[in-house]
Amino acid sequence: MVLKVYADRLSQPSRSVLLFCKIIGIDFEEIQVEVLKNQRFSPEYKAINPMSQVPAIVHGHFKLFESHAILIYLSCSFPGVANHWYPSDVSKRAKIHSVLDWHHSNLHRGSVGLILNTIMAPKGFPSSPQAAKEAEKILMKSLYKLETFWLKDGSFLVGSSHHRLQISV
Amino acid sequence: MVLKVYADRLSQPSRSVLLFCKIIGIDFEEIQVEVLKNQRFSPEYKAINPMSQVPAIVHGHFKLFESHAILIYLSCSFPGVANHWYPSDVSKRAKIHSVLDWHHSNLHRGSVGLILNTIMAPKGFPSSPQAAKEAEKILMKSLYKLETFWLKDGSFLVGSSHHRLQISV
Repeated sequence: MVLKVYADRLSQPSRSVLLFCKIIGIDFEEIQVEVLKNQRFSPEYKAINPMSQVPAIVHGHFKLFESHAILIYLSCSFPGVANHWYPSDVSKRAKIHSVLDWHHSNLHRGSVGLILNTIMAPKGFPSSPQAAKEAEKILMKSLYKLETFWLKDGSFLVGSSHHRLQISV
Repeated sequence: MVLKVYADRLSQPSRSVLLFCKIIGIDFEEIQVEVLKNQRFSPEYKAINPMSQVPAIVHGHFKLFESHAILIYLSCSFPGVANHWYPSDVSKRAKIHSVLDWHHSNLHRGSVGLILNTIMAPKGFPSSPQAAKEAEKILMKSLYKLETFWLKDGSFLVGSSHHRLQISV
């Protein structure tokens, strides 16, 4: 039962799932859903993810979308995933959930909003200078919080020797 | 060790945590952090949640923010929480994560964006008609997805007899 990952490497959430599969050594098939060609709106892809977003996975009969949910599912479903990725300790796990939730409304929202409304605009995405400005504000605030709060506890997000990676992409 | 919930009932994420505490019968202390009085920016509250948002909890020495992370932490930390709230089955749990993640960028973003930029604007919040319009678009799309996708599987979100509630607020 090979895991199928529907993704476009242009998308940060797609990359997070692809990279995590490689890091933890899961055997998977990458299926490209090209955002710039609107392939995510095809009936075939909508049957996998009715929200028409990438990434999504199919694992046997089980379909799942939303990258954070996928990352957690992969951590819990495949054998041999080191405990530090998604600790079984309730408090440590809660901290992982907290940073993932924060990422949604802050770092991801700011960066994606800015990119869509600036460099992706000529590719046919609807764009607005006002939306770009708002997104930039969210992004700058998020980067500040990343530096002054999340990365202060070095061993939580980046400092751990567990996370030295060797990936071939 | 009584759980402390820092919340403002004006905030939907605050209400979700307060309601869940009541539903599962947790003994807790509600501490009001009035958003309209900017109490969330006080040094005392920033020591609890450096992101200056409500809700947050303090449970013994453990501090946590982000409402979804809090809801999951409560489900896992208190004895006697029925399994249907946060099932131990990996696939069922993944579906919970998926809807919570979707909620972040869709239903919550649309509704909060619209409210802040319309009815809350006279209360001193920065508002923009363009942002209100964008938020309304996200909200309408989210409500459509709620009706045509999430609520289609009645037993998942609302159909279960497990969820008949009696709450005094």
